[in-house]
Amino acid sequence: MTALEMQSSDCVLCDEDGGRLLWRNDSLRVVAVDDELPGYTRVIRRSHQPEMTDLSTREQHELMLAVFLVEGVQRQILQAHKVNLASLGNMTPHLHWHIVPRWRDDPWFPDSIWASRRPAAESAVTAWQTRRAALADLLPAYEAALHAALRPL
Amino acid sequence: MTALEMQSSDCVLCDEDGGRLLWRNDSLRVVAVDDELPGYTRVIRRSHQPEMTDLSTREQHELMLAVFLVEGVQRQILQAHKVNLASLGNMTPHLHWHIVPRWRDDPWFPDSIWASRRPAAESAVTAWQTRRAALADLLPAYEAALHAALRPL
Repeated sequence: MTALEMQSSDCVLCDEDGGRLLWRNDSLRVVAVDDELPGYTRVIRRSHQPEMTDLSTREQHELMLAVFLVEGVQRQILQAHKVNLASLGNMTPHLHWHIVPRWRDDPWFPDSIWASRRPAAESAVTAWQTRRAALADLLPAYEAALHAALRPL
Repeated sequence: MTALEMQSSDCVLCDEDGGRLLWRNDSLRVVAVDDELPGYTRVIRRSHQPEMTDLSTREQHELMLAVFLVEGVQRQILQAHKVNLASLGNMTPHLHWHIVPRWRDDPWFPDSIWASRRPAAESAVTAWQTRRAALADLLPAYEAALHAALRPL
Protein backbone atom coordinates (compact mmCIF):
# COMPACT_ATOMS: atom_id res chain seq x y z
CA MET A 1 0.00 0.00 0.00
CA THR A 2 1.34 3.42 -0.92
CA ALA A 3 1.40 6.40 1.42
CA LEU A 4 -1.27 7.95 -0.78
CA GLU A 5 -3.62 5.05 -0.12
CA MET A 6 -2.92 5.13 3.61
CA GLN A 7 -4.06 8.70 4.05
CA SER A 8 -5.97 11.31 2.10
CA SER A 9 -5.27 14.96 2.76
CA ASP A 10 -8.89 16.12 2.78
CA CYS A 11 -10.54 13.24 4.66
CA VAL A 12 -11.97 13.88 8.13
CA LEU A 13 -11.53 10.19 9.05
CA CYS A 14 -7.83 10.38 8.16
CA ASP A 15 -7.46 13.51 10.31
CA GLU A 16 -9.70 12.77 13.28
CA ASP A 17 -10.97 9.79 15.28
CA GLY A 18 -14.55 10.40 14.13
CA GLY A 19 -16.03 9.85 17.60
CA ARG A 20 -14.86 9.06 21.12
CA LEU A 21 -12.14 6.43 20.78
CA LEU A 22 -13.05 3.17 22.54
CA TRP A 23 -10.53 0.74 21.08
CA ARG A 24 -7.99 0.46 18.29
CA ASN A 25 -5.50 -1.88 16.71
CA ASP A 26 -3.16 -1.42 13.75
CA SER A 27 -5.89 -1.62 11.12
CA LEU A 28 -9.11 -0.28 12.65
CA ARG A 29 -10.61 1.68 15.49
CA VAL A 30 -13.94 1.59 17.31
CA VAL A 31 -15.55 4.86 18.35
CA ALA A 32 -18.63 5.89 20.31
CA VAL A 33 -20.99 8.23 18.48
CA ASP A 34 -22.64 10.95 20.58
CA ASP A 35 -26.21 10.36 19.51
CA GLU A 36 -29.83 10.11 20.62
CA LEU A 37 -29.38 6.31 20.45
CA PRO A 38 -27.12 5.23 23.33
CA GLY A 39 -24.45 2.79 22.19
CA TYR A 40 -24.34 3.92 18.53
CA THR A 41 -20.84 2.78 17.52
CA ARG A 42 -18.64 3.01 14.44
CA VAL A 43 -15.87 0.71 13.25
CA ILE A 44 -13.44 2.69 11.10
CA ARG A 45 -10.59 1.39 8.95
CA ARG A 46 -7.27 3.09 9.58
CA SER A 47 -6.30 3.34 5.92
CA HIS A 48 -8.15 5.50 3.41
CA GLN A 49 -10.13 3.23 1.08
CA PRO A 50 -13.70 3.89 -0.02
CA GLU A 51 -15.17 0.45 -0.65
CA MET A 52 -15.12 -3.06 0.82
CA THR A 53 -13.97 -4.36 -2.58
CA ASP A 54 -10.84 -2.21 -2.22
CA LEU A 55 -9.76 -4.57 0.59
CA SER A 56 -8.22 -8.02 0.41
CA THR A 57 -10.42 -10.93 1.49
CA ARG A 58 -8.47 -11.08 4.74
CA GLU A 59 -8.98 -7.36 5.41
CA GLN A 60 -12.70 -7.64 4.62
CA HIS A 61 -13.01 -10.52 7.03
CA GLU A 62 -11.12 -8.70 9.78
CA LEU A 63 -13.27 -5.57 9.46
CA MET A 64 -16.57 -7.49 9.44
CA LEU A 65 -15.43 -9.55 12.42
CA ALA A 66 -15.08 -6.33 14.41
CA VAL A 67 -18.50 -5.14 13.19
CA PHE A 68 -20.17 -8.39 14.23
CA LEU A 69 -18.43 -8.37 17.63
CA VAL A 70 -19.90 -4.91 18.28
CA GLU A 71 -23.33 -6.13 17.17
CA GLY A 72 -23.09 -9.04 19.58
CA VAL A 73 -22.27 -6.77 22.51
CA GLN A 74 -25.14 -4.41 21.64
CA ARG A 75 -27.51 -7.35 21.74
CA GLN A 76 -26.06 -8.81 24.92
CA ILE A 77 -25.58 -5.73 27.06
CA LEU A 78 -27.95 -3.14 25.61
CA GLN A 79 -30.66 -5.68 24.74
CA ALA A 80 -31.18 -3.94 21.40
CA HIS A 81 -34.37 -5.08 19.67
CA LYS A 82 -32.58 -4.89 16.31
CA VAL A 83 -29.12 -3.89 15.15
CA ASN A 84 -28.67 -1.87 11.96
CA LEU A 85 -25.41 -2.23 10.02
CA ALA A 86 -24.41 0.16 7.26
CA SER A 87 -21.40 1.25 5.26
CA LEU A 88 -22.44 4.30 3.24
CA GLY A 89 -19.59 6.80 2.93
CA ASN A 90 -21.18 9.16 0.42
CA MET A 91 -19.92 12.19 2.32
CA THR A 92 -16.76 10.59 3.70
CA PRO A 93 -15.54 7.84 1.35
CA HIS A 94 -13.25 6.24 3.92
CA LEU A 95 -14.52 2.84 5.08
CA HIS A 96 -16.53 3.15 8.28
CA TRP A 97 -19.33 0.91 9.52
CA HIS A 98 -22.29 2.19 11.48
CA ILE A 99 -23.48 -0.28 14.12
CA VAL A 100 -26.73 1.18 15.39
CA PRO A 101 -28.70 -0.41 18.23
CA ARG A 102 -32.42 0.04 17.75
CA TRP A 103 -35.44 -0.27 20.03
CA ARG A 104 -39.08 -0.51 19.06
CA ASP A 105 -39.81 2.74 20.89
CA ASP A 106 -36.85 4.77 19.58
CA PRO A 107 -37.75 7.98 17.69
CA TRP A 108 -37.06 6.55 14.21
CA PHE A 109 -38.23 2.96 14.54
CA PRO A 110 -38.99 1.12 12.25
CA ASP A 111 -37.41 3.54 9.77
CA SER A 112 -33.69 3.92 9.20
CA ILE A 113 -31.98 6.51 11.42
CA TRP A 114 -31.35 8.50 8.24
CA ALA A 115 -35.08 9.06 7.76
CA SER A 116 -36.95 11.89 9.43
CA ARG A 117 -38.21 11.25 12.94
CA ARG A 118 -41.83 10.15 13.08
CA PRO A 119 -44.20 12.44 15.02
CA ALA A 120 -44.75 10.80 18.41
CA ALA A 121 -47.42 11.03 21.10
CA GLU A 122 -46.28 12.49 24.42
CA SER A 123 -46.55 9.07 26.08
CA ALA A 124 -44.19 7.59 23.48
CA VAL A 125 -41.69 10.41 24.02
CA THR A 126 -41.79 9.79 27.77
CA ALA A 127 -41.36 6.03 27.33
CA TRP A 128 -38.33 6.62 25.13
CA GLN A 129 -36.78 9.08 27.58
CA THR A 130 -37.18 6.50 30.35
CA ARG A 131 -35.55 3.78 28.25
CA ARG A 132 -32.81 6.16 27.13
CA ALA A 133 -31.89 7.00 30.72
CA ALA A 134 -31.72 3.29 31.60
CA LEU A 135 -29.53 2.66 28.54
CA ALA A 136 -27.19 5.50 29.48
CA ASP A 137 -26.60 3.69 32.79
CA LEU A 138 -25.56 0.58 30.84
CA LEU A 139 -22.91 2.32 28.74
CA PRO A 140 -19.96 1.66 31.07
CA ALA A 141 -20.82 -2.08 31.04
CA TYR A 142 -21.25 -1.88 27.24
CA GLU A 143 -17.83 -0.32 26.75
CA ALA A 144 -16.16 -2.81 29.11
CA ALA A 145 -17.75 -5.71 27.22
CA LEU A 146 -16.64 -4.21 23.89
CA HIS A 147 -13.06 -4.10 25.13
CA ALA A 148 -13.22 -7.73 26.22
CA ALA A 149 -14.77 -8.82 22.90
CA LEU A 150 -12.34 -6.88 20.71
CA ARG A 151 -9.14 -7.68 22.61
CA PRO A 152 -8.36 -10.87 20.62
CA LEU A 153 -8.37 -8.93 17.30
CA MET B 1 -31.52 -25.67 12.45
CA THR B 2 -35.13 -26.31 13.36
CA ALA B 3 -38.06 -25.87 11.00
CA LEU B 4 -39.10 -22.88 13.10
CA GLU B 5 -35.80 -21.13 12.42
CA MET B 6 -35.97 -21.92 8.71
CA GLN B 7 -39.24 -20.13 8.14
CA SER B 8 -41.47 -17.69 9.97
CA SER B 9 -45.18 -17.71 9.19
CA ASP B 10 -45.60 -13.93 9.06
CA CYS B 11 -42.42 -12.93 7.22
CA VAL B 12 -42.68 -11.52 3.71
CA LEU B 13 -39.12 -12.67 2.90
CA CYS B 14 -40.03 -16.23 3.89
CA ASP B 15 -43.14 -16.08 1.65
CA GLU B 16 -41.89 -14.11 -1.36
CA ASP B 17 -38.68 -13.51 -3.30
CA GLY B 18 -38.61 -9.83 -2.24
CA GLY B 19 -37.70 -8.60 -5.74
CA ARG B 20 -37.07 -10.00 -9.20
CA LEU B 21 -35.02 -13.16 -8.71
CA LEU B 22 -31.61 -12.96 -10.39
CA TRP B 23 -29.74 -15.86 -8.79
CA ARG B 24 -30.02 -18.32 -5.92
CA ASN B 25 -28.24 -21.18 -4.20
CA ASP B 26 -29.23 -23.26 -1.19
CA SER B 27 -28.56 -20.55 1.37
CA LEU B 28 -29.23 -17.18 -0.29
CA ARG B 29 -30.80 -15.41 -3.23
CA VAL B 30 -30.01 -12.22 -5.13
CA VAL B 31 -32.88 -10.05 -6.32
CA ALA B 32 -33.25 -6.90 -8.38
CA VAL B 33 -35.15 -4.06 -6.69
CA ASP B 34 -37.44 -1.99 -8.91
CA ASP B 35 -36.19 1.45 -7.91
CA GLU B 36 -35.22 4.91 -9.12
CA LEU B 37 -31.59 3.73 -8.81
CA PRO B 38 -30.89 1.22 -11.60
CA GLY B 39 -29.04 -1.84 -10.32
CA TYR B 40 -30.26 -1.61 -6.71
CA THR B 41 -29.84 -5.24 -5.56
CA ARG B 42 -30.57 -7.25 -2.43
CA VAL B 43 -28.87 -10.37 -1.11
CA ILE B 44 -31.34 -12.31 1.05
CA ARG B 45 -30.67 -15.29 3.31
CA ARG B 46 -32.96 -18.22 2.71
CA SER B 47 -33.49 -19.02 6.39
CA HIS B 48 -35.33 -16.72 8.78
CA GLN B 49 -32.79 -15.14 11.12
CA PRO B 50 -32.76 -11.47 12.11
CA GLU B 51 -29.12 -10.67 12.83
CA MET B 52 -25.66 -11.45 11.45
CA THR B 53 -24.69 -12.72 14.92
CA ASP B 54 -27.39 -15.39 14.57
CA LEU B 55 -25.21 -16.99 11.87
CA SER B 56 -22.13 -19.15 12.20
CA THR B 57 -18.83 -17.58 11.16
CA ARG B 58 -18.96 -19.61 7.97
CA GLU B 59 -22.50 -18.43 7.16
CA GLN B 60 -21.54 -14.81 7.88
CA HIS B 61 -18.58 -15.13 5.55
CA GLU B 62 -20.65 -16.72 2.78
CA LEU B 63 -23.32 -14.01 2.96
CA MET B 64 -20.81 -11.15 2.96
CA LEU B 65 -18.92 -12.76 0.08
CA ALA B 66 -22.10 -12.53 -2.02
CA VAL B 67 -22.64 -8.91 -0.93
CA PHE B 68 -19.10 -7.94 -1.90
CA LEU B 69 -19.37 -9.74 -5.25
CA VAL B 70 -22.46 -7.66 -6.04
CA GLU B 71 -20.64 -4.49 -4.99
CA GLY B 72 -17.77 -5.35 -7.30
CA VAL B 73 -20.08 -5.82 -10.29
CA GLN B 74 -21.86 -2.54 -9.56
CA ARG B 75 -18.51 -0.77 -9.62
CA GLN B 76 -17.28 -2.57 -12.72
CA ILE B 77 -20.35 -2.53 -14.95
CA LEU B 78 -22.47 0.35 -13.63
CA GLN B 79 -19.47 2.54 -12.76
CA ALA B 80 -21.16 3.48 -9.49
CA HIS B 81 -19.47 6.45 -7.81
CA LYS B 82 -20.09 4.84 -4.40
CA VAL B 83 -21.76 1.68 -3.19
CA ASN B 84 -23.92 1.73 -0.06
CA LEU B 85 -24.24 -1.48 1.97
CA ALA B 86 -26.85 -1.92 4.68
CA SER B 87 -28.56 -4.61 6.73
CA LEU B 88 -31.39 -2.92 8.63
CA GLY B 89 -34.39 -5.24 8.92
CA ASN B 90 -36.46 -3.14 11.32
CA MET B 91 -39.63 -3.83 9.35
CA THR B 92 -38.64 -7.31 8.11
CA PRO B 93 -36.24 -8.95 10.57
CA HIS B 94 -35.05 -11.58 8.11
CA LEU B 95 -31.45 -11.03 7.02
CA HIS B 96 -31.27 -9.09 3.76
CA TRP B 97 -28.51 -6.83 2.54
CA HIS B 98 -29.14 -3.73 0.45
CA ILE B 99 -26.42 -3.13 -2.14
CA VAL B 100 -27.19 0.30 -3.54
CA PRO B 101 -25.18 1.84 -6.38
CA ARG B 102 -24.92 5.60 -5.99
CA TRP B 103 -23.98 8.42 -8.35
CA ARG B 104 -23.05 11.98 -7.47
CA ASP B 105 -26.05 13.26 -9.41
CA ASP B 106 -28.65 10.80 -8.10
CA PRO B 107 -31.67 12.35 -6.33
CA TRP B 108 -30.48 11.52 -2.79
CA PHE B 109 -26.72 11.94 -3.03
CA PRO B 110 -24.84 12.43 -0.72
CA ASP B 111 -27.58 11.42 1.73
CA SER B 112 -28.69 7.87 2.37
CA ILE B 113 -31.50 6.61 0.14
CA TRP B 114 -33.67 6.46 3.27
CA ALA B 115 -33.49 10.25 3.63
CA SER B 116 -35.88 12.59 1.81
CA ARG B 117 -34.91 13.60 -1.70
CA ARG B 118 -33.13 16.93 -1.87
CA PRO B 119 -34.87 19.62 -3.94
CA ALA B 120 -33.07 19.72 -7.29
CA ALA B 121 -32.71 22.31 -10.06
CA GLU B 122 -34.28 21.36 -13.39
CA SER B 123 -30.84 20.93 -14.96
CA ALA B 124 -29.91 18.40 -12.26
CA VAL B 125 -33.14 16.48 -12.82
CA THR B 126 -32.42 16.35 -16.56
CA ALA B 127 -28.83 15.22 -15.99
CA TRP B 128 -30.03 12.42 -13.72
CA GLN B 129 -32.69 11.28 -16.22
CA THR B 130 -30.01 11.10 -18.91
CA ARG B 131 -27.72 9.05 -16.68
CA ARG B 132 -30.61 6.86 -15.56
CA ALA B 133 -31.51 6.00 -19.16
CA ALA B 134 -27.90 5.10 -19.92
CA LEU B 135 -27.78 2.93 -16.78
CA ALA B 136 -30.98 1.14 -17.75
CA ASP B 137 -29.23 0.11 -20.99
CA LEU B 138 -26.43 -1.44 -18.91
CA LEU B 139 -28.71 -3.64 -16.79
CA PRO B 140 -28.55 -6.74 -19.03
CA ALA B 141 -24.74 -6.61 -18.90
CA TYR B 142 -24.94 -6.03 -15.13
CA GLU B 143 -27.13 -9.07 -14.60
CA ALA B 144 -24.97 -11.26 -16.84
CA ALA B 145 -21.86 -10.19 -14.90
CA LEU B 146 -23.63 -10.89 -11.59
CA HIS B 147 -24.40 -14.43 -12.74
CA ALA B 148 -20.78 -14.99 -13.71
CA ALA B 149 -19.49 -13.58 -10.41
CA LEU B 150 -21.93 -15.54 -8.21
CA ARG B 151 -21.71 -18.88 -10.02
CA PRO B 152 -18.77 -20.19 -7.90
CA LEU B 153 -20.78 -19.71 -4.65
